[in-house]
Amino acid sequence: MHIVITGGAGFLGRQLAKTLLDKTSLTTSDAIEVQKLTLFDVVPPQNMPPDPRVEIVTGDIRDPQVLATLITSDVDLIFHLAAVVSGEAEANFELGLQVNLAATQNLLEQCRQLNTRPRLVFTSSVAVFGGDMPAVLQDDTTPTPQSSYGTQKAVGELLVNDYSRRGFIDGRAVRLPTIVVRPGRPNKATSTFASSIIREPLQGQPAVCPVSPEMALWIMSPRQAVKSLIHAAALPAETWGSSRVASLPGLTVSVREMVDQLKTIAGQVVVERIVWQPDPFIERIVGSWPIRFATPKAEALGFEADQSIDEIIRAFIEEELGGRFVA
Amino acid sequence: MHIVITGGAGFLGRQLAKTLLDKTSLTTSDAIEVQKLTLFDVVPPQNMPPDPRVEIVTGDIRDPQVLATLITSDVDLIFHLAAVVSGEAEANFELGLQVNLAATQNLLEQCRQLNTRPRLVFTSSVAVFGGDMPAVLQDDTTPTPQSSYGTQKAVGELLVNDYSRRGFIDGRAVRLPTIVVRPGRPNKATSTFASSIIREPLQGQPAVCPVSPEMALWIMSPRQAVKSLIHAAALPAETWGSSRVASLPGLTVSVREMVDQLKTIAGQVVVERIVWQPDPFIERIVGSWPIRFATPKAEALGFEADQSIDEIIRAFIEEELGGRFVA
Repeated sequence: MHIVITGGAGFLGRQLAKTLLDKTSLTTSDAIEVQKLTLFDVVPPQNMPPDPRVEIVTGDIRDPQVLATLITSDVDLIFHLAAVVSGEAEANFELGLQVNLAATQNLLEQCRQLNTRPRLVFTSSVAVFGGDMPAVLQDDTTPTPQSSYGTQKAVGELLVNDYSRRGFIDGRAVRLPTIVVRPGRPNKATSTFASSIIREPLQGQPAVCPVSPEMALWIMSPRQAVKSLIHAAALPAETWGSSRVASLPGLTVSVREMVDQLKTIAGQVVVERIVWQPDPFIERIVGSWPIRFATPKAEALGFEADQSIDEIIRAFIEEELGGRFVA
Repeated sequence: MHIVITGGAGFLGRQLAKTLLDKTSLTTSDAIEVQKLTLFDVVPPQNMPPDPRVEIVTGDIRDPQVLATLITSDVDLIFHLAAVVSGEAEANFELGLQVNLAATQNLLEQCRQLNTRPRLVFTSSVAVFGGDMPAVLQDDTTPTPQSSYGTQKAVGELLVNDYSRRGFIDGRAVRLPTIVVRPGRPNKATSTFASSIIREPLQGQPAVCPVSPEMALWIMSPRQAVKSLIHAAALPAETWGSSRVASLPGLTVSVREMVDQLKTIAGQVVVERIVWQPDPFIERIVGSWPIRFATPKAEALGFEADQSIDEIIRAFIEEELGGRFVA
């Protein structure tokens, strides 16, 4: 099949591409066999091993002409990962609106015009929730986004549902937990610190933690996220039921538990590189996020959570740091 | 204040305009005093008494230039009623998308550009609900629209909330029950029969009822709807809390109860003009609508339901038929 990944230069897009291309990968479903893989983003992806099946396309997703050239009738499956992250969508309302909302709408319209009913995996987020929430969020808890990013993702979910119901696409929207440990550099996501406090100290660099150790997060590893995206794509349409949306299983982990586990794995010297600098603004936002979910729908569909924060940190060291860290 | 009504030529828009202009009306709040009232629609409103405060503007709401001319910095309050009705939005997906979604987005963007934070009343609908629902819907029941119209209204609610949270507008979204008795002619709303079976027989004309007498609806009279829209506009912003959305109180009435009451008021001859012609397609759609709501939020805010179907039918005869019907 011909697969397109929007946001293909991002860490999740690249890792998804590599996994899809790796025929030996256990996480790749038999249902998803890559004949052609188009990685689309504003910039070309870095560190992609050459592969005859891969096509790199750069452009502005906000341009409907670009989408018309990208999403053609031979495209079978689209992973729509391109997005402006939470902090940036809040700081730059117009940019968030254009990329997270208008471009998603244009993408759906482009799919509809094709009359080929392509499969589409939409990455939603637990940021669709906020404000007054039950202690444990359920599959049917009402999205009450308290950020523009969360609003834009919630709108995307509704549209993916309607376009699927009408038969214009075969859509699947998955609400991703906060991804930890994100490789690379800090970004403008409010949650970026949750990766920094593990990633930077392991490489001998300081990292600021702007929240208290008691603060907890609902997390998922990049590896589990990639596995989940592929699983979302591979599931038969009829298994989704009347809603094409699922909150994915995650782990509830406090910052203290992350740091304690980092210490167990890498030692006291490493965790001392964390600079505790509480930022009331970030604490308020992160404190408004949901941290506990019941996810029976996703579990029934075969989605899985990570085993433990221990496993997540060890996998990061193995996969991203070549098994070595700076003690 | 300068008030704009989009959809100002529709029955609700015209009735809202007349009520707003009538200083003696008990339903008009002191908080809403009309200096200028702009009625916007694709066609001019019929039967509007001349008033120096009224300006009639016709145009296509899908054109951002039209919106830029309509929504200027002197506009204090917008009632956004313009919409493609449920049946039509389902039959013509693109038209619904353009009018119910894109034009609403453009209207919100136009408001944001002004930097004047205008007040905006958005008419949402119980059509945001569908599919598997609790027997009695609660204020926090998750919208699960099963129609494009319902999807477009649910998206509008999310955007009104986010634009309000960001301070770009002072928004209020009210979910209207099915309006009974709609004056005028049948339209393309799937619920149009619910008004026809009362309106047409009272005027000596036949009306087809495509659903069984046992089918129930969640209804509100035009008068109560107008009162509710004005109340929504008049409420102080802070009374709305973290969500600018409220499901309005209504009445649960079966088709049989409507017809029985019509017979009590107007006699057997009148109800014999109803032609019972079940249409499985319409029965399926109407049967999927919610018919019972708990509306504590709206009630705490001072919104009210109609007293009875008896009162609703009598008010229709009084206000729309000049107190006379064809026996």
